Formats: sequence, C-alpha cells, structure tokens
Amino acid sequence: MTLTVMKFGGTSVANVEKIRRAAHRIEQKADSGEQVIVVVSAMGKTTDHLVNLAGEISNRPSKCELDLLLSTGEQVTSSLLAMLLKEDGYDAVALTGWQAGFYTDDTHGNARILQIEESKISEYLEQQKIVVVAGFQGVTQSGQVTTLGRGGSDTSAVALASAFAADLCEIYTDVTGVFTVDPRYVETARKLDEISYDEMLEMAYLGAGVLHPRAVEYAKNDKIKLVVRSSFSNEEGTMVKECVSMENQRAVRGLAFEKHVTKLTLLDLPNDKDTLSKVFNILANAQINVDIIIQNVFKDEVTNLSFTIDDSSLADALDVLNQAKRILRFSEIDIESNLAKVSIIGSGMTSNPGVAAKMFTTLNDDGIRVKMVSTSEIKVSTIVDEKDLSLSLNILHQAFELEEKEVIVN
Amino acid sequence: MTLTVMKFGGTSVANVEKIRRAAHRIEQKADSGEQVIVVVSAMGKTTDHLVNLAGEISNRPSKCELDLLLSTGEQVTSSLLAMLLKEDGYDAVALTGWQAGFYTDDTHGNARILQIEESKISEYLEQQKIVVVAGFQGVTQSGQVTTLGRGGSDTSAVALASAFAADLCEIYTDVTGVFTVDPRYVETARKLDEISYDEMLEMAYLGAGVLHPRAVEYAKNDKIKLVVRSSFSNEEGTMVKECVSMENQRAVRGLAFEKHVTKLTLLDLPNDKDTLSKVFNILANAQINVDIIIQNVFKDEVTNLSFTIDDSSLADALDVLNQAKRILRFSEIDIESNLAKVSIIGSGMTSNPGVAAKMFTTLNDDGIRVKMVSTSEIKVSTIVDEKDLSLSLNILHQAFELEEKEVIVN
Repeated sequence: MTLTVMKFGGTSVANVEKIRRAAHRIEQKADSGEQVIVVVSAMGKTTDHLVNLAGEISNRPSKCELDLLLSTGEQVTSSLLAMLLKEDGYDAVALTGWQAGFYTDDTHGNARILQIEESKISEYLEQQKIVVVAGFQGVTQSGQVTTLGRGGSDTSAVALASAFAADLCEIYTDVTGVFTVDPRYVETARKLDEISYDEMLEMAYLGAGVLHPRAVEYAKNDKIKLVVRSSFSNEEGTMVKECVSMENQRAVRGLAFEKHVTKLTLLDLPNDKDTLSKVFNILANAQINVDIIIQNVFKDEVTNLSFTIDDSSLADALDVLNQAKRILRFSEIDIESNLAKVSIIGSGMTSNPGVAAKMFTTLNDDGIRVKMVSTSEIKVSTIVDEKDLSLSLNILHQAFELEEKEVIVN
Repeated sequence: MTLTVMKFGGTSVANVEKIRRAAHRIEQKADSGEQVIVVVSAMGKTTDHLVNLAGEISNRPSKCELDLLLSTGEQVTSSLLAMLLKEDGYDAVALTGWQAGFYTDDTHGNARILQIEESKISEYLEQQKIVVVAGFQGVTQSGQVTTLGRGGSDTSAVALASAFAADLCEIYTDVTGVFTVDPRYVETARKLDEISYDEMLEMAYLGAGVLHPRAVEYAKNDKIKLVVRSSFSNEEGTMVKECVSMENQRAVRGLAFEKHVTKLTLLDLPNDKDTLSKVFNILANAQINVDIIIQNVFKDEVTNLSFTIDDSSLADALDVLNQAKRILRFSEIDIESNLAKVSIIGSGMTSNPGVAAKMFTTLNDDGIRVKMVSTSEIKVSTIVDEKDLSLSLNILHQAFELEEKEVIVN
C-alpha cells in the first residue's frame, strides 16, 4: 500500500476554511486507498503571537518554557484537522510530537531528532487511521518538550517519511512549486518540474523560502522524494530528488536572492593569524550571522576584512566591534548598506567553467557593479546594490535562458 | 518545610500584566521559604476561543481531539508564568498535565484523576524549583490527553495538595472570598472567614461560582484545607475546612441563587411506576439538566409532574417531550419561565427546625410567591419569580442576620 506524508504549512492552515481545504486533499488521498500521515504547522500567525507574548515577559525567555509555549500552536492545528476529518466520516487521530514518538536532543529551540519511536503511529496506521501529527516538536528522553527550530515542520515531515519508508513526502504551501526565480521580480519566471537536492539546498539557503534547508538535507541523506506544491490548486508541483533527468543539460537552473544586506569592512587590521577568529567570535557571541566573508591576505603588516550581515544587525555589530576596537586594532569600519545578494544556482555549473564569467559580463553590460563575489560548487553569489536587484534578476534570467522549458533527455 | 499549592483562575492570569501579579504572589511565598506548587487555568477567554474554533468545525467535535485542543490553553499559561518567574531570578519549571504525572480515566471532556505519579514533581521540589502545572488536564495510561471538565483546574490543585500532603491549597480568584450572598445583590453581604466543606458544596452547586463542587468534594474527602482569596488584594480569604468553629452558632450561613430557571409541568401523566424514569431518561439523553423535581403521587390514575430546567434548554426540552408525547401520555405541558432559585444554606439547619418556616414567612410577608420548594440536610431552596430575586435575597439576608459578624465560640 502506498504511504504518503503530507505536510501543510502555516498559510495552508491559517483558518478553519483553509484547514477544511487541506482536509479535502487528505480525504482524496485516503479515498484513493493510500495510507496518509499528515504533518501540520501552527495556524497562520499563531507562532508569532506566542513569541510576542513571551517577548512581553522577557527579552530572552527561558528556552525550555518557550518550547512548551510554542508547541501549542501545532497542537491546536492537529486537533482541529483531525476533528474535521472525523466530522467528514474519516477515521483520524491527532498526535503531539511526544505522542507521535519524536525523541530529540535537549537543544531547546533548535532540537535535533534522535529517533522516531514508531510503534504508536504504526498501530494507528494498521487501524487504517489518518494520523495527524503536530509538526515542529518533539520530546527529550526525560520528558521535556522541544521544538525543532525554523522550518521544523518540514523536518518533521521528512523524518516521518524516512521512518515509515513513505513513497512520497508532499509539502503543501502557498506557491505552486520551486521557480527559476521569484515570480514577483521576473515575469518570465518558470516553475521547475524537478530540482536536485543540492540545487534545492542552495535555493533554500539563499532565501527562496519554500523549503527549510535542514529538511532538504535530511531528505537528501535518506533519499526521500519531496514534492513542493500548492495547497490551493491542483497544479503539479516541483519534485525534489537525487538526480534530475536533465541535470547536465543546463548549467544554471535558478536564481535566488537576499535583500537587506550590509557590507562591513574593517580597515587596517593587523595581519595576524588569529585576527579572523577574533573578529568572528566576537560577532558570533553577539548572535550576529555573517554571510559572505572576503579577505585578501598579502604580505603587508595590515589587511582589510570585508563581510556581509543583515541590515538589521548593523547597530549590534557596530556596538560589539567598536567595543573590541582595542583588541582587534583596526583603524576604522567602512559601512555599505542597502545591498542585495544575487545568486545563480545549478548542479551543471561545475562542468561549465564559463558560467561565472557570463554572470559578471551580463551584470557589467547593464552597468551593475558587483561588490563582492562568493562561489561554491553549484552557485555563484554576487553582492550588488539593492536598487539593482530587480534588473539583475531579469537580465540573468534571460541570459541563462531560464524562461525556456528544458528539454528532458533521459 | 511548608508546602502550599496556589491555584490561579482564568481571570487571575488573563493577560501578561495579571500573570506578573500572580508571579509576585508566588515569589513572596517562595521568599518566605515555602515550597510552592502552582496550578494555572487558561488565560481569560482562551478556552472559549478554542471551543468556538472547534464549533466552526463540528456541532459535536470529537471529544478526544477537543481535549487535545483545549489542553493547550493551560499549557500556554504555565509556560508564560514559569518564564516570568525565571526572568525574575527564581528557579521554576512549567509542566503540562502529562508531564506532572496526572493519570486519568479515558472519559474525554470530564476525566477523573486516577493517580498522580509523584516522582517528577518531587524531583523538582527537591531541586527547590517552583513547579508550575497546567491545570484541567491529564493523560490516560495509553497516552491520550484528557481534560477534567468544568472547574478542572480547582480539581487539579486539590489533587496535588492531597498527593503532596500540602499544608494549604490556596484558590486565587477575582473575589476576596466566599460571601454570605452575592454582593452585587445585597449591599450588606459579608465575607465569611470560614465555611465547612458541606456548606461550600451547596454554595458551589447553587451557583456561587467561586469553587467547583468536584474540587470541594475532593478536598472534603482528603481533608485538604482550602483558602479562597483574591489575586488582586492582600485581604484574607475564606477558609474552607472540615469543622467550622461556630458551626452550631448560626443556622443559616449564606444565601445562593440561580437565575434563568424555567418550570415545566407535565399534566395528566399516567400514574405508572415507570413514568418518572421515562421522562427523565428522555431529558437526559437530550443532555438537558434537570434541577428540582416535584411530584405528589395520589391514588388517582393521572398525576402532574413539575421540574425545573435552565431557560436556555426550554426549546430542546419541549422538542423531545413533544416527540415522546405518545409514549409518555401527558395531556399538555405548562411552562413558566423567568424564574429564579433562592436558597438558604447552613450546616446548623438540621438542628434548627424553624429555619424553613422562617424563610417562607419572610418571603410571604413581602408578597413573594414561592412556586416550588426543595430541601436537603443543609439547605432550603425556593423557586420565585426572577423579578423578585433581588428583594428575596435582601430580606432573607436581613432576616437571618447574615450581615452581622458571627461570634466565634470554640
């Protein structure tokens, strides 16, 4: 018998009417004779509301209690959805993370799943029940409730698909799939039929926002076939899998971007071997995420170090860096805000050396100044002015012919 | 070391500001060196909100899922309160019902506590932690979440007080204690210093609304000293205990009432021995609560049967009774709505035969018509027109000298 894990995100269960639509999809699947495990997120803005409540109490609320608090969001959705399935005459059962057997480590707020104790869900599946699991949560061996961090419900879904050897893991969301680029920026953006785990990972890390990278990594490791699709239409989604049919046909498969990037440059740092470690430890201790880092070390006594952070972290970053000015011994900090990161992504890139060059040429031809570059096996990221973002995406989308349907050559 | 269980009701934790006030009370107690177990209800109207959500899904939502849904309300409060205590530098831990070891039967929506598995809470108490338990909930042996029904958090508190042999169980609410009568009706209403379990039970059943009868019964059985007091003032509350010092000093200790009472009379019922059982089974199956029942059986072939229900149940009651008219064989139904029940309560009543007579005389002297009477060991209830309610309470309060402070004779 086919087993499918269906995961519905917050926008797909934002109110009772939307939960009803999710229920109908599940019922169609059950009617066709499939076994179904459902994973749900909290309804719409519930998690934000709970976080705000905690924020009224403390700037740094106890993580242990915060997890107990936040886990109620998904519990509410799973209860309501199972209630609705039962109302419609389907046998269903709602389970919290601990009831579903999600054992995690005790890293509150960002726990890792250690094991899924399968007996409970197995028992319900044998009884032909539709199992509705509250995503994003688990429990430690000592019985404390934990949450899995951002995108946790995706991770819950993939973990269940893995534990129960599901044939498919469907991620229902508010978009119809993974696009070559954000359709709000590029009119000719095209939905991909397929994408490889690695490409999806880069897209995810670069802010495409459809799937959480942790879930993609998990799926990649356990070779879980994922489908990203809309909960509001019957359109086919995007399949995320190991090897994409036309992987070597096209070097670049999609574009991703991030806004609100600030570039900081520490000028005239001493050229010591522990300088990098000092700087980034100071920033890490202040919970500031650093993205691209560039340092060209010459044989001079001093050097410049550039890195990017989110615009919102600027004040904090300047604070801690200036406090440490005597230790770090830089002369001054150069600040450039309102930048954006634009990336081209594709597994075919490694076998196609001209791709980066084509990117720079395309941007340069339209007078767009590239301020930083960072590369990996399957992506090239550039930092440009945020005002150039839309133009950059459009000319790159055209240059790499992303609007054209790929010819699948098996 | 003294151990106190402190229970905070929904109005006492309605928002973060009120949770903060509750936290300060708890902290005062902890500062004085006492061990504290706290039990909390859901914040303000949270439970109503969740019930409404379920109501959007079904008229009769699955009880199992409804319990899972409702239990989130108390879980939110316990998380926030523990968070706040920690923020203030106190060591605290929030626990759900299942984490606190509340094992119940599987009567979803109205579960009975079978056992409190004490090891978890004991461990935390030994670590000098303030234990904050989500009230109103438990778990079955097979791991399903249950709720304890109306007033469940009171019951949770008393059960904990019993399991851990607490010295005191304090019920914090929005009134300063138990009054001789509702102060909104009688200006001279006086707060009682003490009240016996039995008197409290009658007050509770008669809608005084301060404590749930189940919790009082539980406290009575296990001889748990209860204090009802306000979470918004430092005024001493009312102690509920086994034997009240001046129990025999005064026959009547308080007045209670209920509004929205409808009296139904089935006319010309056959005088069969199974008539009563038939009528009340039909009503029970339709979930209609019947309060006072009066039937005078003579040797006639037919008889009249009167009983009271809540005004809101009238339409349903008429439906099911009329549907069963051919089985029950009454001639017609006489309906009298907008009535009220007024009761005098006091353990001293049994040894004081003139009490009921005094009640009737008092009411009669002011032209108030008594439509039904029901008595027990420690109370006399009368049904009057709702428009006479306020007058009835005032003249009875005066007649039984309830405004005067009792002289305690030990």
